[in-house]
Amino acid sequence: MNSGREASPGLSLAAIREARDRIAPYLRITPVMRVKVATPKGLREIVLKLENLQVTGSFKPRGAFNALLQIEGEQVIACSGGNHGLAVAHAAQVLNKKALIFVPKSAAATKVAAMKLAGAEVRQVGDVPTDAFQAAEAMVLKTGWPLVHPYDQEPTLAGQGTLGLELLEQAPLVRHWLLAVGGGGFPAAMAVAMAGKAEVIPIEPEGCPGLFEAQRASHPVAVKAEGIARTSLGAPMIGALPWEILKDWVGPTAQVSDAAILEAQAWLWREARTVAEPGGATALAALLSGAWAPPDEEPLGVVVCGGNADMLPV
Amino acid sequence: MNSGREASPGLSLAAIREARDRIAPYLRITPVMRVKVATPKGLREIVLKLENLQVTGSFKPRGAFNALLQIEGEQVIACSGGNHGLAVAHAAQVLNKKALIFVPKSAAATKVAAMKLAGAEVRQVGDVPTDAFQAAEAMVLKTGWPLVHPYDQEPTLAGQGTLGLELLEQAPLVRHWLLAVGGGGFPAAMAVAMAGKAEVIPIEPEGCPGLFEAQRASHPVAVKAEGIARTSLGAPMIGALPWEILKDWVGPTAQVSDAAILEAQAWLWREARTVAEPGGATALAALLSGAWAPPDEEPLGVVVCGGNADMLPV
Repeated sequence: MNSGREASPGLSLAAIREARDRIAPYLRITPVMRVKVATPKGLREIVLKLENLQVTGSFKPRGAFNALLQIEGEQVIACSGGNHGLAVAHAAQVLNKKALIFVPKSAAATKVAAMKLAGAEVRQVGDVPTDAFQAAEAMVLKTGWPLVHPYDQEPTLAGQGTLGLELLEQAPLVRHWLLAVGGGGFPAAMAVAMAGKAEVIPIEPEGCPGLFEAQRASHPVAVKAEGIARTSLGAPMIGALPWEILKDWVGPTAQVSDAAILEAQAWLWREARTVAEPGGATALAALLSGAWAPPDEEPLGVVVCGGNADMLPV
Repeated sequence: MNSGREASPGLSLAAIREARDRIAPYLRITPVMRVKVATPKGLREIVLKLENLQVTGSFKPRGAFNALLQIEGEQVIACSGGNHGLAVAHAAQVLNKKALIFVPKSAAATKVAAMKLAGAEVRQVGDVPTDAFQAAEAMVLKTGWPLVHPYDQEPTLAGQGTLGLELLEQAPLVRHWLLAVGGGGFPAAMAVAMAGKAEVIPIEPEGCPGLFEAQRASHPVAVKAEGIARTSLGAPMIGALPWEILKDWVGPTAQVSDAAILEAQAWLWREARTVAEPGGATALAALLSGAWAPPDEEPLGVVVCGGNADMLPV
């Protein structure tokens, strides 16, 4: 996969290291915890990275702060399914900027409310993320304000990659990290951050098959965003910049059903008293359901990437 | 307070160290996380110990496993407001024992259901913990089966103290750890575990003033258990064994209102996406409300000791 490579297209390890220093004052070092989970092949001890405890409840402020800290003007635009918008709203509030955020009408109500509470102007456009993304781009053309893209810009990716540097320090023995995939920025950045040291295992809901279809077609293709995880993982397609990395740097995507995601979400609450939104439980679902079968004996990790659930799954 | 002393009455540091080795295979090392909180005197960075993520959702299995691993017979009896009963039920299931658990009728429904799910026989007796405790003692006299007391026996306390050893390793710079007090076993054991290195700051809800009243009278006195935290902190009185330690080893108890507890519970969810039951948010409430005013500059920690909430506070 990624071992032995020295540079990735569009994102460097140096940029991720610089991002880490840049954003450190604004973020938490979220904890890891060892837990035992039942897989179809028996009990395994794994490391959970509890990034759902991050500021704003997901990993997204890593990229949002890294982007906004490099923007001089006061006004920024973002497009988002939800968590990226919340992260940009929060970063703008902390950094004394103004955020105009485009989300689809299907965005989770709690996330939209939190964006507004953080002082952002929110516009809900269309039923699917594509509509919101197009509206944001039209506004950029009209105003000249900079767009903070959720997964197809280098500053965002460099920020998301800081989570990979953290994992290498917190759990240096783990060789396989299971991550949920939306627009692809997160796994691409993590693959660069951990290159040669740990492997990214990409997991997608069956309803949000952006990377699965891109890998099948050998290029990004537009996909529908369906199912319970669509409000966090439902990107219109894998981004061009992430794809240039993902096409060579990660292995095949494992797909999980909505039922498996719900079971993983329930497991996280029942067994570890931690709350994940469906997108945040997607990576664990692959392990619990057997959609991805781990190599024997090798240390495993799972990133719980978001906790902005509308309700508990119990 | 406790520095300079070499031995406590009824509980030794050696017993806590032995407990740690004994129970390690069955428990998690729960994580710590640095967060910034607003106190009446300004923003402070504190360390949160997320013991709400422990197996069964509270610190109680530390004591329960330590006790059950030293009991040879198959059958045990426990009395509990809820979390200790759940911990004993789980430990009994794992160790192939049978648990008969007495709880008051006011015990949280989710905890009673979880005890039964773990295979325990549960008897709900009376409206307040005192009734359940007396029923448990009557059953002990009748059957000869051993009682696993939630806070007035050495094996339980030695287990609870293992959390203190963990804190000294995870956050060695913290000098003040805020803890919620119920029957007193947890703060007593923590004071012994951290003697000379970090101080226990005892916090109680106004409705569960066992330690506050004991300190005022210079001996344990019976108290009513009232308010929203009573299902986890509502002990009939401070135990005799904990009192022998607490009377000399911890400072004055700070009291918090139900409103302050609810606000701390809401803060933990809103700002850190972690779920605490009212008893688990009680220690943090003292800091957020100003009921306990921290010394300037000194590193602080707060234990979130339980996460078995019936519902989210949002």
